[in-house]
Amino acid sequence: MRTVRFPAASKEYDVIIGNGAVSVLGSEVKKLCPGAVKALIVSETNVAPLYLEKVREELTKEGLEAVDYVFEAGERSKGIEAVAAMWNKMAEAGFTRTDIVVGLGGGVTTDMAGFAAATFLRGINVIQVPTSLLAMVDASIGGKTGIDIAMGKNQVGAFWQPSVVIEDISFLKTLPDEVFTEGMGEVTKHAFIVDPELLEKLEKANGNIRDDEELLEEIVAMNVADKAGVVREDENDNGRRQILNYGHTIGHVIERDSGYTKPHGLCVAKGMGIMIDACVKAGTLDVKTAERMKDLLKLYKLPVSDDITPEDIVKGAMNDKKKRGGTISVILVNKIGEAEIKKMTPEEFMRFLSK
Amino acid sequence: MRTVRFPAASKEYDVIIGNGAVSVLGSEVKKLCPGAVKALIVSETNVAPLYLEKVREELTKEGLEAVDYVFEAGERSKGIEAVAAMWNKMAEAGFTRTDIVVGLGGGVTTDMAGFAAATFLRGINVIQVPTSLLAMVDASIGGKTGIDIAMGKNQVGAFWQPSVVIEDISFLKTLPDEVFTEGMGEVTKHAFIVDPELLEKLEKANGNIRDDEELLEEIVAMNVADKAGVVREDENDNGRRQILNYGHTIGHVIERDSGYTKPHGLCVAKGMGIMIDACVKAGTLDVKTAERMKDLLKLYKLPVSDDITPEDIVKGAMNDKKKRGGTISVILVNKIGEAEIKKMTPEEFMRFLSK
Repeated sequence: MRTVRFPAASKEYDVIIGNGAVSVLGSEVKKLCPGAVKALIVSETNVAPLYLEKVREELTKEGLEAVDYVFEAGERSKGIEAVAAMWNKMAEAGFTRTDIVVGLGGGVTTDMAGFAAATFLRGINVIQVPTSLLAMVDASIGGKTGIDIAMGKNQVGAFWQPSVVIEDISFLKTLPDEVFTEGMGEVTKHAFIVDPELLEKLEKANGNIRDDEELLEEIVAMNVADKAGVVREDENDNGRRQILNYGHTIGHVIERDSGYTKPHGLCVAKGMGIMIDACVKAGTLDVKTAERMKDLLKLYKLPVSDDITPEDIVKGAMNDKKKRGGTISVILVNKIGEAEIKKMTPEEFMRFLSK
Repeated sequence: MRTVRFPAASKEYDVIIGNGAVSVLGSEVKKLCPGAVKALIVSETNVAPLYLEKVREELTKEGLEAVDYVFEAGERSKGIEAVAAMWNKMAEAGFTRTDIVVGLGGGVTTDMAGFAAATFLRGINVIQVPTSLLAMVDASIGGKTGIDIAMGKNQVGAFWQPSVVIEDISFLKTLPDEVFTEGMGEVTKHAFIVDPELLEKLEKANGNIRDDEELLEEIVAMNVADKAGVVREDENDNGRRQILNYGHTIGHVIERDSGYTKPHGLCVAKGMGIMIDACVKAGTLDVKTAERMKDLLKLYKLPVSDDITPEDIVKGAMNDKKKRGGTISVILVNKIGEAEIKKMTPEEFMRFLSK
């Protein structure tokens, strides 16, 4: 078990990582939220049958009254209806401002649980208990919460940091292979943008990290520290935090064009692959490093290309909420561990992407 | 025209008060939100026909593109449906994180406009243009935003401070008499809890402040400064900000029991009247001061009593979200300008209220 301190500007908190980490949930709640009497456990239909009772037990043994809200697993549930149901559940159970929300699940769950907590009674504490690799290394940390609306993913939400994040590595055992692989999209991204040491560790592991719990714990902790290092400088995503969008500008377009049927992490991997090729073509990334990056993606069963055209990428990117004025913030990696943000006009981005 | 600086911990901003103050809207937007290209004007069916075009003109003359969302006037509109419609409107119009929301109306409008801004793209700027006395002296300043849900008023929301608040005193001319009177509930409250000078001014005006624009501007500015002084010490309502709830613990119960048909400001006045009587009975408030306070309420056509029973008050207060554990935070004024917070058990509160 190890702890990474997450130092966001608005709130500093622990991310506790380890096999069986969920067993500290109750004592953390008592320590961090001493006034809490009630807890809403938010989860979904895949995760709840596996871990909900364990989490409830951890809370009730400390004297908390736990109610739960379990929604149908999947991105399609990520809307205001589910969050409104959470509000009602808390209001009916008589929650006050010192009570808490616990998010138990993947990114959809932790995003929605965080948003419900951010808005109920103008903000109550949330504790995140991510169960997917993607949520552990990315979605559940850093305080971005939200929901989708008809016009797009994560268009509505709040920056709302958790009181503590508890990452039980043993939960990853039940994760379907393809969902684990998806999480590797964000893991390799962190290696590329800020962490050459992580890249070496992943290469050395030769694609086998799922069954080595000690190694997995270490890798998850490195990723949390990577993200913490970026977010501490720019919590509200106005500058440097944008480097976390490496592969995402293109990935988002691919994801949206598929009607959100293609998994986020795989779309990001494709976006990174396309960016790697474009940087080689532009002469800013050497071929050997590019090969090394793409080999790592392939080693962890991630895709490195897509048949989307530069035209469709640029068109889609211009509709993306990350657009500012007439330019697109493009994230480049020309040297392992050193991401840069480059503003491009649509025309420049098109030229950059064209073969 | 005068400016009161509102120094909340998370954001400091100006409240600009005066006859014709709306004419500075455009220049304030350019100064404070230089990246803004689009604005959503949120208003309601009573206010929009009077002032929406004026506000649109102020924005468009500075080159902004203005869209609007006008809802049916009244508390019943204050739900997530209206806010979701605002989100969609902004998404469809291609709003980015540098665009803005303008709230034009009374408290229902500024609360919802603020919440829509707090949550769209995880938070964009909002500018409040209150049109009612109550919104000018209370609802639109201090950053409390929110909506009602079935289980209660303002159960969902966010603390989200505006970039600037523009209070055009001339807008008060079109306010129906009973709505103006309602606002006086909060004005007299400020006088009682923190501002003996305001109390004297209101006494001297002898109930006639509506037609004296210079005096009205001065009184509104004093109220804004009063609230600013309280909020600067406790933005998130965990301590001293609770004194702003003077008369509200009881007022909320009366308001809720009426199915929200009785105006908020009048219910607060009733709550203050009941508290004044109870303090006299408890021997902590002298009869002469009590008479002075009640005379002021009557002078401004506010009610000072209600036929609600102590049993119903205590029962209702225990269901209120402001309850913490087994006690109720009761706000007392035993000396003009010096409010205190006293925790009472339900039994103590019942004894305190019983004749």
